[in-house]
Order: sequence, then structure tokens, then C-alpha cells
Amino acid sequence: MKSEIITIGDEILIGQIVDTNSAWIAEQFNRNGIEIYQITSVHDDKKHILEALKKAEEKTDLVILTGGLGPTKDDITKKVLCEYFNTKLVFHEPTFEHIKQRFKNRNIDLNKLNRNQALVPESCTVIPNSAGTAPGMWFEKNDTIFVSVPGVPFEMKNLVENEILPRLENNGKTKAIYHKTVLTQGLPESMLAQKIEKWEDALPENVKLAYLPNPTAVRLRLSAIGKEKTMLKKQVESEIEKLQKIIPDNIFGYDTDTLAGVIGNLLKEKGKTLSVAESCTGGYISHLITSVSGSSSYFKGAITAYSNEIKEEILEVKPKTLQENGAVSEQVAREMVLGVKGKMNADYAISTTGIAGPEGGTTGKPVGTVWIAVAGQSEVIAQKYVFGDNRERNIIRSSQTALQMLRRLILKEL
Amino acid sequence: MKSEIITIGDEILIGQIVDTNSAWIAEQFNRNGIEIYQITSVHDDKKHILEALKKAEEKTDLVILTGGLGPTKDDITKKVLCEYFNTKLVFHEPTFEHIKQRFKNRNIDLNKLNRNQALVPESCTVIPNSAGTAPGMWFEKNDTIFVSVPGVPFEMKNLVENEILPRLENNGKTKAIYHKTVLTQGLPESMLAQKIEKWEDALPENVKLAYLPNPTAVRLRLSAIGKEKTMLKKQVESEIEKLQKIIPDNIFGYDTDTLAGVIGNLLKEKGKTLSVAESCTGGYISHLITSVSGSSSYFKGAITAYSNEIKEEILEVKPKTLQENGAVSEQVAREMVLGVKGKMNADYAISTTGIAGPEGGTTGKPVGTVWIAVAGQSEVIAQKYVFGDNRERNIIRSSQTALQMLRRLILKEL
Repeated sequence: MKSEIITIGDEILIGQIVDTNSAWIAEQFNRNGIEIYQITSVHDDKKHILEALKKAEEKTDLVILTGGLGPTKDDITKKVLCEYFNTKLVFHEPTFEHIKQRFKNRNIDLNKLNRNQALVPESCTVIPNSAGTAPGMWFEKNDTIFVSVPGVPFEMKNLVENEILPRLENNGKTKAIYHKTVLTQGLPESMLAQKIEKWEDALPENVKLAYLPNPTAVRLRLSAIGKEKTMLKKQVESEIEKLQKIIPDNIFGYDTDTLAGVIGNLLKEKGKTLSVAESCTGGYISHLITSVSGSSSYFKGAITAYSNEIKEEILEVKPKTLQENGAVSEQVAREMVLGVKGKMNADYAISTTGIAGPEGGTTGKPVGTVWIAVAGQSEVIAQKYVFGDNRERNIIRSSQTALQMLRRLILKEL
Repeated sequence: MKSEIITIGDEILIGQIVDTNSAWIAEQFNRNGIEIYQITSVHDDKKHILEALKKAEEKTDLVILTGGLGPTKDDITKKVLCEYFNTKLVFHEPTFEHIKQRFKNRNIDLNKLNRNQALVPESCTVIPNSAGTAPGMWFEKNDTIFVSVPGVPFEMKNLVENEILPRLENNGKTKAIYHKTVLTQGLPESMLAQKIEKWEDALPENVKLAYLPNPTAVRLRLSAIGKEKTMLKKQVESEIEKLQKIIPDNIFGYDTDTLAGVIGNLLKEKGKTLSVAESCTGGYISHLITSVSGSSSYFKGAITAYSNEIKEEILEVKPKTLQENGAVSEQVAREMVLGVKGKMNADYAISTTGIAGPEGGTTGKPVGTVWIAVAGQSEVIAQKYVFGDNRERNIIRSSQTALQMLRRLILKEL
């Protein structure tokens, strides 16, 4: 089943709000085997909405409209739907009863604008909205289903989840689809693509691969479309098994996993603890770790040692080491990581020292130069990286790389 | 000028990512007097993209395409653009040099896929992308301008801000417009609105006010539209002068200022230093401070003391204080702030201790309870807050509130 989402209203087109409704609907529909052909955002403009409806009807089996159902003047969706389906607004008694009840519960008086919310196009099936006053509306025309729901996110979600999707399933309209996203780290997109090219070319025809890079990871999304969900799941899982053999070190998780969360689970399982000493990452690694709920059970703490003074006094880096090698050096990274590990009595530790930029670079150590060290139960690993010239990205990439090094060390020592 | 945004790629249509790019572009365009007629999200599908281009050309003067420019197989935008503009891909030497340089800086070898990013449609104007490898492309056809930019948000933003909008202005395509955003803190939106009502009502007709609230500040954006930019600037500045007299304590900065940056400037001016002790904010305050370039000149460092052990051993909080009051208490916040200030020999310090959630709340201290303390040269101020039940928002709000308290203390002591 192919679908188009049409959002109606100016808020999205002037950039006042981000269209989270469409992302939510798209995710729900995909999970239920409804492919989204297009998402279209249009103004509260009759002609424009009529055009969008016509185009959507030509291309898809299901059109979902959000927004434009409020009580105020600029909400014209219902009038436009009447014109499109050649019908007229009629008063819908059950909807009016529902509105009256909601206002009574909140001790608010009804006005004429609220009464107008009980007007619905005569030819539609009214879908009760238990979370708000404006009802959903269901139309059918030339094998295309049209559903109109309010734009208020929780009302929309309630209607889609509890009314629209069950009705579609009952009508036998939905295909099976299965997605899984593989999260990788440590290989840029182009190198990863080369490494897995043969695997990609051998994917079954109904399984699609998409690359979704972001500054910290390259995500590989596998989507299988077919008739039977358990079969599709098996198919995707078996492809992922093959992939694991090709890039075993690079896959750190799936779907909504985060590196900090994955590390947290490893530490919790093994009853181990973690501490961090940060220079160039300035607290961001500590923030990533503590963003995970429950991290207090394995995270002892962190020290942002921005000045050499703090590196010496709190992390016990030797003044001589700093003098001879400079703060951005392997030796300092190693002393920092051992310093914080000892000081906080932790099983694992991370340290970073580098030049986040945009100032502070030299010929030998340009902006973006970072030394990262991780310490485990029997080993300290230090590694130099040269990232780019953007401070924000250098902080993010250094932090994610440090977490990746830690994850590998933990896995090695398990 | 009328514009359509076309986003290309499956991620949005399967609901894996929320389309924040379009909201950002829409806001920028609107601020520059370019109306957004429609936002359309389509698949990586040649026929579909061609159709979308055709429809957009019929209706608008400017079409901006985002996404589909990565080095991998599923990115087909360039090929489709060649077909649409009846041209072919040619090798673009300056782009290749730029790509080579970026890879060289990062010590990564180029492969064939990277080389392909230097292929561009022959008839386009190549727009250099200083933040990434895929260049922007500018086409003109029948009075419509088409611009293609990468979908990676910071690359897209960099190109739109620094290349596309200036080119449109130089071509006389956009009206003169001047914006300035006033950043306020300490008054909720509704109270602020009451306080500045008269000033707002007396604004000249061509100057518009928009409230842009976010979890940490209420921003007031003034936009003046007219013919001549220097005049508009004068007009806006004179309105802001009046506003400053009404809410002198609440304005902390303008436009892209951040609280951490404003504090940094105050500290730099006065030659003072800062240190931080964090429990519930987990390194986020340290991250905000060190996100400011040049912060190493006034920021000594931070300690994330997640466990009581670290609070005692490193911050020298007395075990008795912890036992008698619990970690989330005024006494512990006060001892933490003095501990870190002394330990790091700083002029100013911040501490936080609270329950970020979702677990760990009690009847007396529900999730969201936070004690924040700031210490200056002669005074320690501690304050209790009760935020909500969302971990991420609690961390952000606690951090911003702590910075606000610090800013006020610094101003008081100057």
C-alpha cells in the first residue's frame, strides 16, 4: 500500500515548527507495511490543497491529511474536503455531544466556534477523537482512502494508533515490512561501502540497503518488503549475520542504540566502573555517559582538566611530562588516563587531550590533533587522531572515537 | 519570491529522521523575504524526483533540493539533475582539489567513490562546500533558480547561509531585511509579553516582533523589512534601546550569543577564572563552557562527581554532610562549590546536585529536584529548583539555570 502525507498549515512553511508529525506517521506506517510515497506540506490555501489531493489520489492508495481542523478562521480543511468530495457540511450530533462533555469536564462554556467543530462533510465516516474536540474523517474515492486528522500531535497519534491503523488492518490493506539499522563506527562511509560491496550486491531483491551517515557513525538500514513479517525478519537477520563477519569490529549496535548506552550495558553486566579525564572534549564524554539513565551505577565521575595546573594537581600528570612533550601528546594522555583511573578507583578510564580549535594549532600539531587514551584492567592504549577545523565537530568526533576505543578494550578484556 | 523545498532520500519517508533541514531553511528564507510555497519529501527515485522538479518549476521561482549527494550508490540526485537540465557529468578539478585536501588533512586515503564526488553537471555553477566534500550546485531554467545542497545539516546550513542567500541578495532576488534577536532570561513568555506590551504596540509598521521561546531562554526577534539595509538596522537598534530600558536585567545577549559565551567575555574582561562541580548535570555545564572558543583562558576545569565517594575524596564534601542531608541538598551544593573553587584555585565556581531521573526520586525529593550553588569572591548563593521528569530536559535546564545564576553573581560583584 502506497501513501502520501499532506500537512496543512503555515507553521511548518515558515519554519516556526518542525514537522515531527510526518516523521511519526511515516514510522508507524512503515512498520505496518504502508510505504510513504511522498510527504507534502502546503499552506491553508483552498486551491493548493485541492491540487495536492488530486496529485496524491493519482499516485497513492491512502492519503493522510494533518492539520487545519482547529476552530479558528484560517482552518479550512473541512470546507476544502467538501468541495473535493462534492458534499456539504452537516451537523454531527455524536461529535457535538462529545465536545459538550469535554467542555463540561473542564468547566468551560461552549461558544459558536466550538459548535462548528461538530460540522462534518456528509459523505465521510466520522472517526471519534477521544483526545480532543475535532473528529477524524475517513473518505473513499476511486480506490483511494483519504483520512483527515487534527495536527495536534497527541490527538493525531491517538487517532492513527487506535483508529486508523486498526481500520486499515481490518480492511486487509497493509503489506509486511521489516527494518533494522546497523550502527557502525571507525570506517568512513566510502571505505565502508568498498568493504561491504560484495555483500551489498548479493542482497536479495526485496531487501534494500541505505547509508545514513552522521558525524559520529555510519548507519546501515536494511529494509525487507514481502508478505510475511517473521520471514522478512529472518531474512534481514541472516544478512546482518553475514555482515558481522565482514566488519566485526565496526558494528556497535542496532536501531536506537547509542555508544554510551552500549558501553553502559557492558559495564553493568560485568560489574565494572568507569572514570574520565577530559581536556579538549571539555566534559562532553562525561555528558554522553551521564545522559544514559542508570549510569550512576557504573560511572564514578570525570575531571575536565582544561589547564595544565589541574592536569598536574588533580590528575597527577608530571610537570616534566608536560614540559617535555606538551599537553597534546601521547605521554600526557597516558598519564591522564592512569591518573583519573587511580584517583577514582575505577576499572576503566578514558582520557583526551587535543586542540579543538579554531585557535591553538601549530605546524607540528594542527587544529584537530587529538590524543586519546583508554585504560583497562591490564592495558593502556593511546592513539593519535587528526580531525578537522570545526571546534564543535572535533569535540563530538573525539568523544565518540574515545567511546569506541573504550568499547573495543572492554570487549577484548572480557 | 516563491520557493519550494524538495528533500530527497528515504530516511524522512520511513520516519527514521525528522526533517529539521526544511524547518531551518524555511525559517531562513522567510526571514529573507522568500515565501515557501511547498515542502516536498520524495524517495531516491529518478522518475519521482523529475516529476517533483517539474511541478516545482511551474509554481515557484526558487527550488532548493537537499540530500542525495553522498558518495554511495543510493545517492542519485546528480544524475537526475543531469537528465532534467539535459547536461552531463564532468570532472570538476577545483572540487577534486578541495576533496583531496580534506582527506589529506585527516590522513585518509581517497578512493574512487570520493573521486566521483568531484563529478558535477556541466551546466551548473558549482558552489564550494567548505564544510564537506559534496559541492552545492546552482542551475537556472525559465526564470526558476534550482539549488542542490547536501542533506548533512551543518553542510547544508553553511552553504545556505554563506553562499546561497548572499548570491540571491546580490542578484537582487530578495528584499532588504534586517533581523536582530534579543535574548532574555528570567521571565516566562507570558510575563515578558505583559511587561513589554506598550513597547510592542508602538513598534513601526514595518518592524515585526516574534517570540521564540526555548527551554532555556525567551528570544525576541525583531525583523524590519524595507528598501535600505542601513536604515532598517538603525530602526531596529533604536527599538532595542527602548526595550533595554524596560527590561535591563533580563537581556543577556543578542542573536547567536550564548550564556556561556557571555559569561566568558565577562570573565575575560575582568581577568577572572571559573571552575565547576557537577553531579546531576554530569559534565554538561563543563561542555557548554568549553564549547566557547578561547575558554581555556578563563576556565580551569570541572569535576563530574557522580558518586558520593568522588564528592568526598575530590571535592572534600564532608561524609557527615552527605549522611545528614543526602547528596541532593543545599549543604552538599555549598560544600561542592567551595570544594571545587578551592581545589582549582578559581575566582568563581558552580555546583549542581539533583535527581535527573527518570529513576531515583522520593516523596520528599521528586525527580527534577536540583540544588544549584554559585560562589564568587565574597558570596555563595544556593537555590533549589524543581524541574520536570524528563532526564534530558532536566540536565539542560539545570545547566542553563546555573549559568544564569553565575552571570548575575558576576555582574553583582563587578
